[in-house]
Amino acid sequence: MSVTAAKGFTAAGIAAGIKENGNPDLALVVNNGPRLAAAGVFTSNRVKAAPVVWSEQVLKGGRVSAVILNSGGANACTGPLGFQDTHATAEKVAEVLDGHSAGEVAVASTGLIGLRLPMDKLLPGVERAAAELTEHGGEKAAIAIKTTDSVHKTAVAQGDGWTVGGMAKGAGMLAPGLATMLVVLTTDADLPSGDLDSALRAATRTTFDRVDSDGCMSTNDTVLLLASGASGVVPGQAAFAEAVRTVCDDLARQLIGDAEGASKDIRIEVVNAASEDDAVEVGRSIARNNLLKCAIHGEDPNWGRVLSAIGTTSAAFEPDQLNVAINDVWVCKNGSVGEDRDLVDMRYREVRITADLAAGGESAVIWTNDLTADYVHENSAYSS
Amino acid sequence: MSVTAAKGFTAAGIAAGIKENGNPDLALVVNNGPRLAAAGVFTSNRVKAAPVVWSEQVLKGGRVSAVILNSGGANACTGPLGFQDTHATAEKVAEVLDGHSAGEVAVASTGLIGLRLPMDKLLPGVERAAAELTEHGGEKAAIAIKTTDSVHKTAVAQGDGWTVGGMAKGAGMLAPGLATMLVVLTTDADLPSGDLDSALRAATRTTFDRVDSDGCMSTNDTVLLLASGASGVVPGQAAFAEAVRTVCDDLARQLIGDAEGASKDIRIEVVNAASEDDAVEVGRSIARNNLLKCAIHGEDPNWGRVLSAIGTTSAAFEPDQLNVAINDVWVCKNGSVGEDRDLVDMRYREVRITADLAAGGESAVIWTNDLTADYVHENSAYSS
Repeated sequence: MSVTAAKGFTAAGIAAGIKENGNPDLALVVNNGPRLAAAGVFTSNRVKAAPVVWSEQVLKGGRVSAVILNSGGANACTGPLGFQDTHATAEKVAEVLDGHSAGEVAVASTGLIGLRLPMDKLLPGVERAAAELTEHGGEKAAIAIKTTDSVHKTAVAQGDGWTVGGMAKGAGMLAPGLATMLVVLTTDADLPSGDLDSALRAATRTTFDRVDSDGCMSTNDTVLLLASGASGVVPGQAAFAEAVRTVCDDLARQLIGDAEGASKDIRIEVVNAASEDDAVEVGRSIARNNLLKCAIHGEDPNWGRVLSAIGTTSAAFEPDQLNVAINDVWVCKNGSVGEDRDLVDMRYREVRITADLAAGGESAVIWTNDLTADYVHENSAYSS
Repeated sequence: MSVTAAKGFTAAGIAAGIKENGNPDLALVVNNGPRLAAAGVFTSNRVKAAPVVWSEQVLKGGRVSAVILNSGGANACTGPLGFQDTHATAEKVAEVLDGHSAGEVAVASTGLIGLRLPMDKLLPGVERAAAELTEHGGEKAAIAIKTTDSVHKTAVAQGDGWTVGGMAKGAGMLAPGLATMLVVLTTDADLPSGDLDSALRAATRTTFDRVDSDGCMSTNDTVLLLASGASGVVPGQAAFAEAVRTVCDDLARQLIGDAEGASKDIRIEVVNAASEDDAVEVGRSIARNNLLKCAIHGEDPNWGRVLSAIGTTSAAFEPDQLNVAINDVWVCKNGSVGEDRDLVDMRYREVRITADLAAGGESAVIWTNDLTADYVHENSAYSS
């Protein structure tokens, strides 16, 4: 269902020849209105890909009529010529779609950093994608944005007479601020860009921003929300925000489930923190501890590595009051040995780590995955 | 030569039975004076092992007569009973060495977190180690503190009539603040603890504190400098500080060279930074980028991952002015594609990354290593 689940959108996904292996690599999503409202959030990396710089500018207007996305190249660190390529891509989309303006066309790219895109393939690809736009193209669009993703990712939430749907890609360079991901969400709810923006920011803050696969922040992260208004329904802000959050949460969970080389999905819940910021800081520190991620891969409930990660943070806690559970067994109590670690059953893919800071009433959940030889292999060979 | 290169010290290393495989696991270093001056720096992890809590207290007095070190167990996260074990170990050392006081005995431990030490083996071991103390025992002491180290590490610098020598262990959980290491340095220079302290802090700041193998900060890091005064020479502070720095630098380099699973040693030099702090922040961010570390493992000069790491810092720079060289080939110029990446020869173990921030005149060097399947394997299996 993807980005065409909501009324008012068409999409396409094709193989333009950007990827040398001939896989689909170009997706086009078009908002046919009547509204063209949009909101977006982007990587906080200071080294931003050309399409991020472009799309941030587009989003300032609060209107997006189309999104063109390519895999097979990030168009990051490509200098002024790379930016010209992005600009030319948006111009081409506006040209082939009647009545569109380049200034309302968002562009997103993913793939290897530091290489120019093959514009001689990409621009003809835009024409072909436009010719294949349909109301059922969401699935193909989701497939065309995959890089090392093993599966394409889509999600849908239904409101009362309106719908939020979306697609995502991302498998490596996944870390907050945002994770390495391209996400396009669409809705036929009839809402202005300000309402989209507040719903999107609230949703990403507790979903995509709390996924930390490998601690590596991308140059290309882009999450867009487009509203067509085609349902004619103006939902309540709370219901709409919850639907957007549900779709983001679903897609974020799919991203972690498909992370490069991962054999375990790790849910880290930090409880009894003095503040939500403390809980997030501790959760991220645990999520980024390579030694712990290796231990989880080896099905070793090595809680000492959890404590050593907590100890590097500035969160409020006393070391001798920390408690840690792995899969609900409290292996660490009061900063020391707790229940028998042999009671921890780690055979299943999902592993739950609970860190109790005993310092307040706030909490947060961070998702990560284990560190495996497959991750190393995949990322040693990626650009060759 | 190790800790007995300087006059006035004896040492021993034995197998006390703490390690189940029967390898050496207990080292004793004794300062026979006439001076007992000492300085120490310790992990900045807030979760500190019992021996760190103990030894920090000992060092406040500026006098250390002996150091007892064990591998085979970190005695971290072991609660009040673990602290009693450390205390009992220091008491035992004071008891078997005539005229020593437990309050001047430093204790250091390394190994798995969260397990009590087998005191029924450790305490008899102290007696045996004391019986084997000799002026040539430095080598054996260095061997007894190994955990996953493949080789023992020692270094010596000669002054004019005085000597600085030392030993180190550390192979994983290596990251600043300090890295996961135990280090004992000794000198026969005749200096008070204040002078030792300033020389040691200056030296560790630019050596051990700039080694970042896996981003994981330990609960047990301890670096001690003991002076016996046995040479009768009072060196100039500058010459002494330089000798201490030389020994620390030598040992730090050995730690990186023996990092768990590593196949490449990576020297990251950040130049033209606005401040030394900026240079260190950028260097550490590059050193902690798992994707880059995988790429280096695959001999892939993936400079895009360097830029994406720089982009996550708060250092002063403009993205379109960044330059990056890998093994002296400037593959990135002005934030974009530079010289041909195929010119980069990465066959050798040492890889040099130079990041030019074009923002000032300061610089810093950080050492790290690549991320390999062997690292994953070693750290999935460590505690089993």
